[in-house]
Amino acid sequence: MTFRQERTIHFSDCDPAGIVFYPQYFVMLNAHIEDWFTDGLGVDYYALVAERRIGLPTVRLEVDFVAVTRMGDRVALDLEVERVGGTSLTLKRHITGVAGDRRMTARQVLVTTSLDTHRAIELPADVRAALHRVAPTANPPSTAA
Amino acid sequence: MTFRQERTIHFSDCDPAGIVFYPQYFVMLNAHIEDWFTDGLGVDYYALVAERRIGLPTVRLEVDFVAVTRMGDRVALDLEVERVGGTSLTLKRHITGVAGDRRMTARQVLVTTSLDTHRAIELPADVRAALHRVAPTANPPSTAA
Amino acid sequence: MTFRQERTIHFSDCDPAGIVFYPQYFVMLNAHIEDWFTDGLGVDYYALVAERRIGLPTVRLEVDFVAVTRMGDRVALDLEVERVGGTSLTLKRHITGVAGDRRMTARQVLVTTSLDTHRAIELPADVRAALHRVAPTANPPSTAA
Amino acid sequence: MTFRQERTIHFSDCDPAGIVFYPQYFVMLNAHIEDWFTDGLGVDYYALVAERRIGLPTVRLEVDFVAVTRMGDRVALDLEVERVGGTSLTLKRHITGVAGDRRMTARQVLVTTSLDTHRAIELPADVRAALHRVAPTANPPSTAA
Repeated sequence: MTFRQERTIHFSDCDPAGIVFYPQYFVMLNAHIEDWFTDGLGVDYYALVAERRIGLPTVRLEVDFVAVTRMGDRVALDLEVERVGGTSLTLKRHITGVAGDRRMTARQVLVTTSLDTHRAIELPADVRAALHRVAPTANPPSTAA
Repeated sequence: MTFRQERTIHFSDCDPAGIVFYPQYFVMLNAHIEDWFTDGLGVDYYALVAERRIGLPTVRLEVDFVAVTRMGDRVALDLEVERVGGTSLTLKRHITGVAGDRRMTARQVLVTTSLDTHRAIELPADVRAALHRVAPTANPPSTAA
Repeated sequence: MTFRQERTIHFSDCDPAGIVFYPQYFVMLNAHIEDWFTDGLGVDYYALVAERRIGLPTVRLEVDFVAVTRMGDRVALDLEVERVGGTSLTLKRHITGVAGDRRMTARQVLVTTSLDTHRAIELPADVRAALHRVAPTANPPSTAA
Repeated sequence: MTFRQERTIHFSDCDPAGIVFYPQYFVMLNAHIEDWFTDGLGVDYYALVAERRIGLPTVRLEVDFVAVTRMGDRVALDLEVERVGGTSLTLKRHITGVAGDRRMTARQVLVTTSLDTHRAIELPADVRAALHRVAPTANPPSTAA
């Protein structure tokens, strides 16, 4: 199951070459994860961080930037769950023009951490259950690493 | 006539105090202007900059930050035209929680410039006409400075 | 007494017009305050925020953007204390090219807050004493508002 | 030959978890490349982009985030040339605490492009010659892809 959002590329996303400055893609990817948690998984991302003190830092990224994106372009962000581990989550991410032409593609590994110790912790039960609903094959109930 | 947009405050808008990092308010205000030009005035902001080579830099800002905004808050951005000059545009900006509680308020003066010389130029005729439609009293047809 | 720092304008500070995107000026001004606290006042800014849980949000800004700054430009940031109140601090800020030509000038009012309540608190004694050292006339010992 | 720079992690580099927001690492890595071109290779990065209209976009990134970095931390950024191709450049990047503890490590592939067409172009002769000086084994004179 893919979680999709569309957005317009703004002036502030772009660099003096008039195209998206690549760190801004990661700002977009992060906002997309937040909205996926809250709207797609039904787990309030802001409560997760601010109240439950659980972080979701990225520990590994593999990214291909396939084509440039210009100011004013309308793009789609897609997110799919590839694998659910004991403390980690592997996502496939794509950004395409709304016509379907690929701009960037990424594999991203996140871990859940305690924001007090910054150490990895087990995926919380509500997160794991929600991941099972949206990606049953990536997250079999017996997953243990 | 007020141009309003709503948005959610994301993790990346916030600082280690867990509240909006104030420079991010200006990133939001800029995106809001872009969308106002394109959707509110009917003047394509991206064509203005990239094709017509006309810039819209801010030359003056007066800002009051009235209350903090937290991650996950839903806010409304409001924009009104206060005055239209020969080469400049004065806007009133407000950011409020969706319940109406004020977070920040600003007066912002922008000028139109040539992106080749970075010097002020007269407001383009289509921009002036559009401003007259949305703010007739701020922009009388005879405005000349 | 003026606290001065120099820096080079990077690609990432600039927008599709090839000049500093104005919200980035505020990112620079914030880093400048942090270094001023730590190196100029002798009050560790990061301990202030992370350990002492004291914030230093901006509550008022008046800014004039006088001339554009381009990628690769070398600029100087200057900070002076204008007034010290009971819970607030008014600063004059200037950014100039290293040849002395003015790019932006700002008056900025900050308050000290509790990061638990986000309410204003009295300036801590060590901050007040340090301000008295660097700006005795702006911060008479009897200041009380 | 490694090009090293040190810097302090500022408040604005950090997120509500109080640690570096990972897109900010890429902003730092970009500034580091700019300074490496200008100071390490002797090729003015800003003239490259603004006058010669040559871009240096990233086309591939592999990144491991090994440990968190906090506000106020002093870090070192290291850059080494791994491979020089006909139109591309592969770099190894490391960010460590100044005590040597690894925070992130990346492999980054950049290409030189025309900023008019955004298509890849041959590495300019002065860039290739400079790369040969700093990384002779990664960039043999006969390199052709």
